[in-house]
Amino acid sequence: MFRQITGFSNPTVKYLRSLRDKKHRRREGKFLAEGLRLLTDARENGYLPESVVFAEGRDSHPLLSALITPVHAAGGEIIETTPDILSKITGKDNAQSILGVFPEFDTSLQSVDPASADIWLVAQALRDPGNLGTMLRTGDAVGAGGVILIDDCADPFSVEAVRASMGAIFTQKLVQTRWEEFHPWMQSHDGQLVAASLRDAQPYRAAPYRAPCFVMVGNESQGLPEDYEMACDLRVTMPMRGRADSLNAAVAAAVLSYEVLASLDA
Amino acid sequence: MFRQITGFSNPTVKYLRSLRDKKHRRREGKFLAEGLRLLTDARENGYLPESVVFAEGRDSHPLLSALITPVHAAGGEIIETTPDILSKITGKDNAQSILGVFPEFDTSLQSVDPASADIWLVAQALRDPGNLGTMLRTGDAVGAGGVILIDDCADPFSVEAVRASMGAIFTQKLVQTRWEEFHPWMQSHDGQLVAASLRDAQPYRAAPYRAPCFVMVGNESQGLPEDYEMACDLRVTMPMRGRADSLNAAVAAAVLSYEVLASLDA
Repeated sequence: MFRQITGFSNPTVKYLRSLRDKKHRRREGKFLAEGLRLLTDARENGYLPESVVFAEGRDSHPLLSALITPVHAAGGEIIETTPDILSKITGKDNAQSILGVFPEFDTSLQSVDPASADIWLVAQALRDPGNLGTMLRTGDAVGAGGVILIDDCADPFSVEAVRASMGAIFTQKLVQTRWEEFHPWMQSHDGQLVAASLRDAQPYRAAPYRAPCFVMVGNESQGLPEDYEMACDLRVTMPMRGRADSLNAAVAAAVLSYEVLASLDA
Repeated sequence: MFRQITGFSNPTVKYLRSLRDKKHRRREGKFLAEGLRLLTDARENGYLPESVVFAEGRDSHPLLSALITPVHAAGGEIIETTPDILSKITGKDNAQSILGVFPEFDTSLQSVDPASADIWLVAQALRDPGNLGTMLRTGDAVGAGGVILIDDCADPFSVEAVRASMGAIFTQKLVQTRWEEFHPWMQSHDGQLVAASLRDAQPYRAAPYRAPCFVMVGNESQGLPEDYEMACDLRVTMPMRGRADSLNAAVAAAVLSYEVLASLDA
């Protein structure tokens, strides 16, 4: 039933490994997601991998059969290999015992209904895949509808971003767009655009948030461009009691989102 | 006045590069910090590097002279090199134009006066250096006294942690200890130990925080051990509206710390 791969130089291993590069992902329209829990989350959200690779012996977990059976039934390939080869594919020591190959999603802005959730996260030119994955994870936690990436962000389908999302890549709506498209879209839909900002901003506690609220943070070193901030409905700032004048972008998004959540619930 | 290094195989380059390894850092008792802004922050907080390495041409910034002059006056070595060699030392493309070599600090628990700040961050077995640096940065932002690392955490003196701290490694008190030492210390000092927890926890909004408040988060995949949580004065939980049951550790610490800050200020 399973195809066995035991050689590092097997062409399938090389192909899977190539999906760690953005260029190859784009060309193939596929990405990798690791871990039994993450793949189970994916399946429960309606995402079945096209193929799975697992390492023999490690987990004879019931979740593993629950995953492999429908993939096989759908005509997907099931590959059994060694833990070392799995590590080679994902580039991580102590790799998870399973990985899946998924088709990339539609990430167009047109697929978003802003009224479908009270909170949305927006990231502009976010360059760190770990921050990006962490924002997806935070979005899931605050019950956001999704994460909207504007301008040149890290690739959300990279192994690092998918890993940091802890499965939220399958639960959050994901959009890739640019300010020139996003800004008119915001203006033509009901929604409040809120920037984490230092310019002409009010304290983030008890600011007048309203749903659907779009919480926007900027690039890790530059922050948001001034004209983007000025186009927002609300600019809010968090206390900075020390020497630094900013928080990590994913941290700022989380502190602000949790405040919005509390405010909308009140 | 400056020593020039133009060769990749220069022994000083090798020595500096070796400080990226924990083993070598421990043996030498030194660590690397990059960037003009970070080194300026360090100087303004009383930390002068033992030596600096800068790349010619890049920045003829007044801050550079403001940094080099006192290091030179204190008998420190000033090394001029190329951007490529700087990148090789720090392992980062587009390296900063300057790096400093600093002696590691005293990180003993005994050096902490809990009454010196209203908030302290505590991390248990935090394995990701980026998360650790981000916690230092958050600590600075909320005006915390410092970050207390318990059990086997990532090395706060790693290049990655120092980088993610954005200079907060020089403004936050940093402690490395173990639970067996930390727990009796907490019991013998005035202070409230608060765990981000799912067990027997109350909502984090409007929980009865009191200063000095020690905000504790656990390992990225395991969370806090149950007996650690049970030893806390307060267990609080953040809403989790999605599928996931936890936040990124540095995010949880930040959301909780900002709530404590607002609560203590009220």
